[in-house]
Amino acid sequence: MITLGLSYAAAVTILALLLFFYMGINVARMRGKHGVKAPAMTGHPEFERALRVQMNTVEGALMFLPALWIAAIWFGGWLPAAAGLIWVIGRVVYLIGYMAAPEKREAGFLIQSLAVVALILLSAWGIGRALMGM
Amino acid sequence: MITLGLSYAAAVTILALLLFFYMGINVARMRGKHGVKAPAMTGHPEFERALRVQMNTVEGALMFLPALWIAAIWFGGWLPAAAGLIWVIGRVVYLIGYMAAPEKREAGFLIQSLAVVALILLSAWGIGRALMGM
Amino acid sequence: MITLGLSYAAAVTILALLLFFYMGINVARMRGKHGVKAPAMTGHPEFERALRVQMNTVEGALMFLPALWIAAIWFGGWLPAAAGLIWVIGRVVYLIGYMAAPEKREAGFLIQSLAVVALILLSAWGIGRALMGM
Repeated sequence: MITLGLSYAAAVTILALLLFFYMGINVARMRGKHGVKAPAMTGHPEFERALRVQMNTVEGALMFLPALWIAAIWFGGWLPAAAGLIWVIGRVVYLIGYMAAPEKREAGFLIQSLAVVALILLSAWGIGRALMGM
Repeated sequence: MITLGLSYAAAVTILALLLFFYMGINVARMRGKHGVKAPAMTGHPEFERALRVQMNTVEGALMFLPALWIAAIWFGGWLPAAAGLIWVIGRVVYLIGYMAAPEKREAGFLIQSLAVVALILLSAWGIGRALMGM
Repeated sequence: MITLGLSYAAAVTILALLLFFYMGINVARMRGKHGVKAPAMTGHPEFERALRVQMNTVEGALMFLPALWIAAIWFGGWLPAAAGLIWVIGRVVYLIGYMAAPEKREAGFLIQSLAVVALILLSAWGIGRALMGM
């Protein structure tokens, strides 16, 4: 059954995908701007920062997306999608900060970390409840 | 309820996983062929191309798989799985092209990009319909 | 319907996420220990090994998580979650082995590979059954 909470989680997932899309375009743009020819992955700090933003977000999304969906199904309601929206916002802050300077990547990273921790806790709660037959 | 459309999406997902599997084997093979010892990630252009194919596909799959499944559930029918099959074909063309030469990676990249855009549009349509209670 | 088998798969997924979480912390720790400043991705073998463990696990999880969930839904029962648990154990062995020495990464890699192959076979079996209307 498609509940409203699941549709909100789906909408947040699509937002996250659009952000990855933009991050990929950002890497290609920096490759062009600084003349870093494929398959080279180094050559200019601004290109390397764009690449790190994307790679770190890929790694992070691998925790975020499963946790979002397990929380959405096992915990339910609108809370998982709300935490997911905070994750997306944290990743936007991370992108803007890291592109400005490596030291400025930490605020956004912290926001998205807290969102993932919240989603893992909601998931664990929901799974625990299901396994105990409640 | 497991519909036929969901089973098609599952079959396309397994095809994509087999392609990742092959890409991973290709990286290991190029590591051996050119004597690039782990954990080094540079050392020979052909090895670096094999690695970029795999990494770019990992990044791409993170958009593809969620979009495929959201489209399969929220939009429904066989169209999402058909777009998914085009994505897999685009990634095979990308693999063959990039291994031949970095400039030849663009046709396959374009095909898989269009498939992802199509899946995101189908997803957005399906989610919009669900949120408006239709 | 949330079956017990799906809840087991969810629990194994959360275990895998906690392992990624630790691997990310391990990369940050090695960056600090060896003074490798972001966005640099090379500079000390121990840092590079930590990074390779994380990246290889990200690539691997992209096969593991879809195969786990397709097997959990299309094949059913507790077998997919059991294979998933073996994957997590294989990845822990891989982490410990690779951090000790690159040559010691192979046992753990083999364990997790076999678990993924098992999950793909269970998935293919389950999808085949569904497509033949059984």
